[in-house]
Amino acid sequence: MGTAVMDMIETYPADLGGVDRQKLARCIEECMACMQACTACADSCLSESKVSELVTCIRTGMDCADICATTAAVLSRHTGYDANITRSQLQACATACRSCADECERHASMYEHCRACAEMCRRCQRACEELLRSLG
Amino acid sequence: MGTAVMDMIETYPADLGGVDRQKLARCIEECMACMQACTACADSCLSESKVSELVTCIRTGMDCADICATTAAVLSRHTGYDANITRSQLQACATACRSCADECERHASMYEHCRACAEMCRRCQRACEELLRSLG
Amino acid sequence: MGTAVMDMIETYPADLGGVDRQKLARCIEECMACMQACTACADSCLSESKVSELVTCIRTGMDCADICATTAAVLSRHTGYDANITRSQLQACATACRSCADECERHASMYEHCRACAEMCRRCQRACEELLRSLG
Amino acid sequence: MGTAVMDMIETYPADLGGVDRQKLARCIEECMACMQACTACADSCLSESKVSELVTCIRTGMDCADICATTAAVLSRHTGYDANITRSQLQACATACRSCADECERHASMYEHCRACAEMCRRCQRACEELLRSLG
Repeated sequence: MGTAVMDMIETYPADLGGVDRQKLARCIEECMACMQACTACADSCLSESKVSELVTCIRTGMDCADICATTAAVLSRHTGYDANITRSQLQACATACRSCADECERHASMYEHCRACAEMCRRCQRACEELLRSLG
Repeated sequence: MGTAVMDMIETYPADLGGVDRQKLARCIEECMACMQACTACADSCLSESKVSELVTCIRTGMDCADICATTAAVLSRHTGYDANITRSQLQACATACRSCADECERHASMYEHCRACAEMCRRCQRACEELLRSLG
Repeated sequence: MGTAVMDMIETYPADLGGVDRQKLARCIEECMACMQACTACADSCLSESKVSELVTCIRTGMDCADICATTAAVLSRHTGYDANITRSQLQACATACRSCADECERHASMYEHCRACAEMCRRCQRACEELLRSLG
Repeated sequence: MGTAVMDMIETYPADLGGVDRQKLARCIEECMACMQACTACADSCLSESKVSELVTCIRTGMDCADICATTAAVLSRHTGYDANITRSQLQACATACRSCADECERHASMYEHCRACAEMCRRCQRACEELLRSLG
C-alpha cells in the first residue's frame, strides 16, 4: 500500500514543487487507513449493546471518515496545485482526527475497535500536522 | 430541494443548539449544488478542444467538488455536534470555493460552463462564510 | 437546484448522445436529495432514545448516502461516456434506494425523519429505474 | 495497511456471517489502493502535454475512484448487512475497474502512471469478483 502510493507519486510526469515526497505519501496512506478505521469503528459501535453511549463516537467517526477521504483525494492531485486548498483541507483533517481520537480514547478501555481507531486517528493527525509544517 | 433539506432539519428529534436553521439549510443546498456544478464543469472542460489550457480549472473543480460533498455531509449531522470539525471544514470549503470561483472566472468569457460554475462557487463560498459568522 | 443541474447539462460543449436530458437531470437531483436525506436521517436516528432499534436503518442510510453521492458524480460526467459503468452504478443505486426505503418505511409511523427519508429514497429509486430504462 | 483493515475486522463485536474474512479484507484494501491510483493517474494525465488524447482515461479514472471509495465504505460496514446492496455495489465496482484497466492499458506503453494504474484496477476487479463469488 505504502509502495503503491509512492509508485503513483514517482510516475507523476511533472514537477512536484518542493514537497517532501515521503511525508506526502505517508499522509495519503494515513488518511486512507483512518477513513477505513473510522467507517469500521462507527459500524462496530452500532453493533454494541450500549450503542446509546456511543452516538457521539459514531458521528465523529462518520465526519472523520468523510474528511479523510476528501483529504486523500486532494493530496493525490498535483496539477494546478493550490496551496490554500491543500492547507485548509489538511487543517480540517488534523482537527477531525484529533476530535475522533479524543472521543475514541474515552471508550478505548471498553471497546477494542475504539482503541484501534483512536490509534489510527492519532497517526493521521500527526501525518497531517507534519505535512502542514513541511509545506511552510 | 431547498424544501427537502429544511424538511430533514425540521424532523431532527433533538435540539439543534443556537444554529441559524435558514443559514444551515442554505449552506447544505449550496454545497450540493456547487459539488454538482464543479463535477459537471470539470467534465465539460475535458470536452473542450483547448483542454490543455483548462487543466488547473479541472483540478480545482475536482478538489472543490470533493470538499463540498464532505462539507454537506458534515453539516447534515447534528448529533454529537463538534464545533471544531464543523468550523474547520467550513473554512476549507470557503477556501476551495473561492479558488475555484477565481479560476473559473478567468475562463468565463470563453466558456459558459465556467461562467455558470463560477457563480455557483461564489454563492457557496458566501453561504459558508455566512454560516461561519453565525456560528460565532 | 433543478435549474442548476439542467444549466450545467445545457452548457455541456459536446454531444450528449441520445440520453433523455430531463430524466438525466431529474436523476442527478434525486441522487443528491436522497444522499442528503439519508445522511440526515441516519443522524436523526442516532438522536432517538431507542437508537438500538434503528441500527439497520442507520447502516442502510449510510450505504445509500455514499452510493447516491457516487451515482450523482458518475451521471454528471459525459466525456468518454461508458454505458457499462453508468448502468451498473445506476443498478446499485436503485437497489440501495429500494432497501433504504423499505427499511425507513418500517419506522415511518414512529419517526417523521424516516417517513421523509423513505419518500426521498423511493423517488430516487424510481428516477434511477426510469433513467436505466431510457438508456435501453 | 492490510494489517489495519484486518485489525478492524477482527475487533468487530458481532458475527460476520459466513463471509470470507481474507477476501473481504483484501477487497477493501484493493478498493482503497485503486481509488488512490485512479485519482493520481487522472491527475498525471492532466499534466501530460498530450492531455487531449487522455480525456476518456481521465473520466474513467474519476468514475472508478468514486466507485471504489463507495465500495470500500459499504464493505467496511457489517451491522444490518444487506447482501443486495453489497452485491450490486461490488458488481458496479468490478465493472468500473475493468473499464478503467482496459482504458489505462491502451496508454500503458506510453505512460508509466497508466501502466501502474491499470495494474491496480485489474487487481481490484479480481478482488471484487472473488468476493462476489464467495458471497454465493
